[in-house]
Amino acid sequence: MIKANSQTSTLTSANHQHKVYPHHHLLGIDGLTKLDIDHLLNRSEYFVKHNQQINKKCSNLQGRTIINLFFESSTRTKTSFELAGKRLGSDVINMSIESSSIKKGESLIDTAMTLNAMHPDVLVVRHPESGEVQLLSQKVKCSVINAGDGSHEHPTQALLDALTIRRRKGSLEGLEVAICGDITHSRVARSNIHLLLIMGARVRLIAPPTLLPSKIECMGVQIHHNMKSGIAGCDIIMMLRLQKERTHGSFVPSAREYFRYFGLDMNKLQAAKPNALIMHPGPMNRGVEIDSLVADDIKRSLIREQVEMGVAVRMAVLDLLVGGQGKI
Amino acid sequence: MIKANSQTSTLTSANHQHKVYPHHHLLGIDGLTKLDIDHLLNRSEYFVKHNQQINKKCSNLQGRTIINLFFESSTRTKTSFELAGKRLGSDVINMSIESSSIKKGESLIDTAMTLNAMHPDVLVVRHPESGEVQLLSQKVKCSVINAGDGSHEHPTQALLDALTIRRRKGSLEGLEVAICGDITHSRVARSNIHLLLIMGARVRLIAPPTLLPSKIECMGVQIHHNMKSGIAGCDIIMMLRLQKERTHGSFVPSAREYFRYFGLDMNKLQAAKPNALIMHPGPMNRGVEIDSLVADDIKRSLIREQVEMGVAVRMAVLDLLVGGQGKI
Amino acid sequence: MIKANSQTSTLTSANHQHKVYPHHHLLGIDGLTKLDIDHLLNRSEYFVKHNQQINKKCSNLQGRTIINLFFESSTRTKTSFELAGKRLGSDVINMSIESSSIKKGESLIDTAMTLNAMHPDVLVVRHPESGEVQLLSQKVKCSVINAGDGSHEHPTQALLDALTIRRRKGSLEGLEVAICGDITHSRVARSNIHLLLIMGARVRLIAPPTLLPSKIECMGVQIHHNMKSGIAGCDIIMMLRLQKERTHGSFVPSAREYFRYFGLDMNKLQAAKPNALIMHPGPMNRGVEIDSLVADDIKRSLIREQVEMGVAVRMAVLDLLVGGQGKI
Repeated sequence: MIKANSQTSTLTSANHQHKVYPHHHLLGIDGLTKLDIDHLLNRSEYFVKHNQQINKKCSNLQGRTIINLFFESSTRTKTSFELAGKRLGSDVINMSIESSSIKKGESLIDTAMTLNAMHPDVLVVRHPESGEVQLLSQKVKCSVINAGDGSHEHPTQALLDALTIRRRKGSLEGLEVAICGDITHSRVARSNIHLLLIMGARVRLIAPPTLLPSKIECMGVQIHHNMKSGIAGCDIIMMLRLQKERTHGSFVPSAREYFRYFGLDMNKLQAAKPNALIMHPGPMNRGVEIDSLVADDIKRSLIREQVEMGVAVRMAVLDLLVGGQGKI
Repeated sequence: MIKANSQTSTLTSANHQHKVYPHHHLLGIDGLTKLDIDHLLNRSEYFVKHNQQINKKCSNLQGRTIINLFFESSTRTKTSFELAGKRLGSDVINMSIESSSIKKGESLIDTAMTLNAMHPDVLVVRHPESGEVQLLSQKVKCSVINAGDGSHEHPTQALLDALTIRRRKGSLEGLEVAICGDITHSRVARSNIHLLLIMGARVRLIAPPTLLPSKIECMGVQIHHNMKSGIAGCDIIMMLRLQKERTHGSFVPSAREYFRYFGLDMNKLQAAKPNALIMHPGPMNRGVEIDSLVADDIKRSLIREQVEMGVAVRMAVLDLLVGGQGKI
Repeated sequence: MIKANSQTSTLTSANHQHKVYPHHHLLGIDGLTKLDIDHLLNRSEYFVKHNQQINKKCSNLQGRTIINLFFESSTRTKTSFELAGKRLGSDVINMSIESSSIKKGESLIDTAMTLNAMHPDVLVVRHPESGEVQLLSQKVKCSVINAGDGSHEHPTQALLDALTIRRRKGSLEGLEVAICGDITHSRVARSNIHLLLIMGARVRLIAPPTLLPSKIECMGVQIHHNMKSGIAGCDIIMMLRLQKERTHGSFVPSAREYFRYFGLDMNKLQAAKPNALIMHPGPMNRGVEIDSLVADDIKRSLIREQVEMGVAVRMAVLDLLVGGQGKI
């Protein structure tokens, strides 16, 4: 959630006292209000247009320092945050730390405290363990953005998905949204479920039982184990990446078998509303969870637009957290 | 070649229409005219002087975004493009993707389309397969610069070589240029052959038959299998790196044997014109294709100057493609 | 040492002559005077305050190019230099080269000369071999900063330690400082010994005989093999990282045994002065050379402050070497 620490914080360094200002985090969608999300999406719209100009640079974060701290490999999300920060005029430093070297050398908290001492304004953190980003945020005196922690949350992904939908459908309220695939290992699914319910959409999860966490229906979602029935009458279909690297141990179907039952192709898509839209957080496994004809359908696939919205949403989050354009 | 798409392109993003402007690529030397090349070299001269100032930064690409997309490891070329972009005032994002992870995860085109959605102005692309950069350029709505594709082309290397020669010899016209070494695997050789012939130089290739592609003489070059006869009367000798990492499978001589027959040393150099100049695209294998005495000969070796010209040429290319200083 | 080349240098590039100005290096603490160090620390104080502002950017190095050339992995020092350079308004390029690939491809000097040809203003160099950074500095026409060479010197670490101490104690003169741990492999220890003696502090080394270089006492330091006697009456205790990766071959105690005899805990700390302060260059091995209770002691541990001072000291060094604020 976006948390304003109740007390204003003072960063004492030797004899000098740091300028007092409250710091805010974006740790998850859980805990945000509809108003918070609307405000963020409205601000994001401004940056969508900004990024379509030839000069894509502004000075809202001039003189600030953002550190991209990634304990898990990423190209897409890291690049998106790096671009967002630079276009806002901030310095951006990338730190990619394999989780192995973290174990060997230094604890997560020591790494965080070390970076904190360099006076960054924002730490953008991805970590393979759920909850570690929140833990880290309690130790530092700057804003922390969760760029994905384990199978817990990935809030900027849910926000960019929401922005993409809102631009097409006008509003999220009352929409029927299906999220399909490996729910168990998906922080994207988890953040999206929170957001969609907050915004008044209805959510169905479609997955084989082995890829569904137990008691997930308590979140207020419908469960389907069959694609056609799950998709029936949907406005939005969000496909998830089959994350083979995370599913070791649990039962995983072959790619061919998975595609047959849970891959989205033109045939299964018939069940949805005629103007249903397709989303995928990327990178896609074509022919596994999604057929190329669907992925590349110009009218119905929003997959490229999601990436574009990603940069805008991250600019809005950075700007609202530290740019002084009014707190969220 | 530098291609202006015949139609002006519109980048539609959701409801908004992107500012319409034609985008241009630099995919190879093949297809450029003498006029194109002269224009580029003239513009490069400006940046040679610019880079000798204390303040090496200008604002020609202020607010723009360049993405360095390297599917093959590189330090020299990537650094040169990064420096060139930053000195022009652009933001530069580096993405190094091992070709293995590309196969595993996402297709080249998906990667390109993803980056395209982030509104870069230029993609600088290196790829281990010939032709992949051109393929990619057809899918994106921004300028693409080929930073080396397989054994096909490496146009900015040929341009920086031309600039280096022109500064010493005044013109390329009528010069006798020998290109020596592993021609088969060399995109540097291929781009240089195109450029030198366009500019009116005569080109000889010197290599053992195993390192020469068949029918290469159809390009309009002389073939030599003997260093001394090949070098005789030359103005310029371009040595190529023996790329051991590319020659698996084909017959490769030992380094010692290769040096004996095809390595450039002071003895073999006697055959060239007294004021002949030595070039090498780097990194050098000293004692394999070139002797240190030759490589470090202050009067005749242009090897360091080539690197210097590299930054200037890349600034000129970036500036002409997207800086709005008049299209090439 | 900071060396002003006696002659002013000219960087000739083809027909053009580079702007003439002397270039300076920071290769080690050995050879600096008390005046040099005081001047650097005074300048650093300015940047400590600068970094506590919201806008942490200035234009002292506007238009300049810094290349971080790291032949050894590093996150902390590289990030600190990158931040320092960017906050001064310079472009910063990172180059991480595994020493294995350097052997395979290109010599250190060729790499240096190649980068030199790109007209950087500063090379920040870390190298696993002692003396290689000095060698490199003799070949290039720009300023070189030693960011750690083998077990030789790491001057900015000693400077940041000095700044941290001076801010707490007012002066280094007359202080009793203990440096504890793996002295043999520590460039941090070596640079600190030089600096502390120059500034009038007294230095004791505490280590098992296997981790002490022979004849180290000739530097003018006291030797102790017992923690309690070594620490007795100390003002400052500098703990060193037990560098397991460097100690292959020599006798190394188990972590548990090492901690028992040479790890700093609250019990051993009793022997020091009541207001003794604790330092560590990081990253820490908690439970090996230092106990967490000591490391996290808010009143006595300066470990986070050292990191903060690191950015300020590096800004001061960069600014004095190339920023034209008066030479050191």
